[in-house]
Amino acid sequence: MRKVIYLYTKLAPKKHTIILCTGNKNKLKEFIQIMGDQFHIDSEPVDLPELQGPPLQIAKEKALLAYEKMGKACVTEDTSLCFNALNGMPGPYVKWFLDAAGPEGLSKMLDGFEDKTGYAQCILSYMGPELKEPLQFVGQTQGVIVRPRGPRNFGWDPIFQPDGYTDTYAEMDKDVKNKISHRLKAIQKFIDHFLVN
Amino acid sequence: MRKVIYLYTKLAPKKHTIILCTGNKNKLKEFIQIMGDQFHIDSEPVDLPELQGPPLQIAKEKALLAYEKMGKACVTEDTSLCFNALNGMPGPYVKWFLDAAGPEGLSKMLDGFEDKTGYAQCILSYMGPELKEPLQFVGQTQGVIVRPRGPRNFGWDPIFQPDGYTDTYAEMDKDVKNKISHRLKAIQKFIDHFLVN
Repeated sequence: MRKVIYLYTKLAPKKHTIILCTGNKNKLKEFIQIMGDQFHIDSEPVDLPELQGPPLQIAKEKALLAYEKMGKACVTEDTSLCFNALNGMPGPYVKWFLDAAGPEGLSKMLDGFEDKTGYAQCILSYMGPELKEPLQFVGQTQGVIVRPRGPRNFGWDPIFQPDGYTDTYAEMDKDVKNKISHRLKAIQKFIDHFLVN
Repeated sequence: MRKVIYLYTKLAPKKHTIILCTGNKNKLKEFIQIMGDQFHIDSEPVDLPELQGPPLQIAKEKALLAYEKMGKACVTEDTSLCFNALNGMPGPYVKWFLDAAGPEGLSKMLDGFEDKTGYAQCILSYMGPELKEPLQFVGQTQGVIVRPRGPRNFGWDPIFQPDGYTDTYAEMDKDVKNKISHRLKAIQKFIDHFLVN
């Protein structure tokens, strides 16, 4: 069980309200920074079990559980950090590795491999009464895994250096990160879908 | 979803029957080798979702789901391979790492660490109508993580070398492995409990 994010969307023609149910203040802050202009965003903490499996399936099952529990349209968020040398692992399990071994331990897992590339992935899964299965929006940002640099208060941000930058996510100004992040890309797809449809 | 093992126990005074529901023939073979003298063992394949979380909690939730699905007493099995340098990871997620990166990739994850020690863990969780929560039996075997040696047909056996031996699980004669394995230790606790109680 862990705190997760829901987005409850009331997509009325001129007012868009999203309720994010999360215990993670940093994630909430990022959503507000990215979507704040277009949506009014509230938050609420919720506990949900997470399954093992391929990232899209984990995310789908969580969205279905969330919808069952919330009884209304909601969006769940799933984040992965994927190492190419490990064909995508630790992926959706990165939080457990971070808890157990810290950012140093995570980055040292690649010492034996030449390939230090990887990608950050965000999956937003929307489930509502009009759907049979959740809609999923995937954002990926490519980069390299490095030894931790920058503040330690936001997960694995200190070890992920996006392509084209010399700073890690943790070292970057938040405005810069929020223009290139995996979360931005997933949220952008989500916004595009709902503003267009 | 993946195939898991159930043990359905009919522990009548003089006849002990266990139904293992598994799609994994190697696991079934090991159970028969270890318990075959004391129990009659059948098998049956079953699919169950697995949660993320601490190993004992993952195992407990799976046993409860299994019991709900089977409608009768059952035992589920959960196996982990835990690296001490990573404070127990990849642990219950080892199967995903094995699928993604193979035994070579798994062993190379420790190249950056001096500590190559780890342990194999088996959790048997028994749930029956007389219980509110599953009974859990944990078996651990300490060892070191090495580059793959021996046959590749049984998961991470080629990279686990138990303490006091120069062979990996995969290289060992099955009779030798089954006298020291994490699975043997968990099964032994299970047998002791049910033969004594």
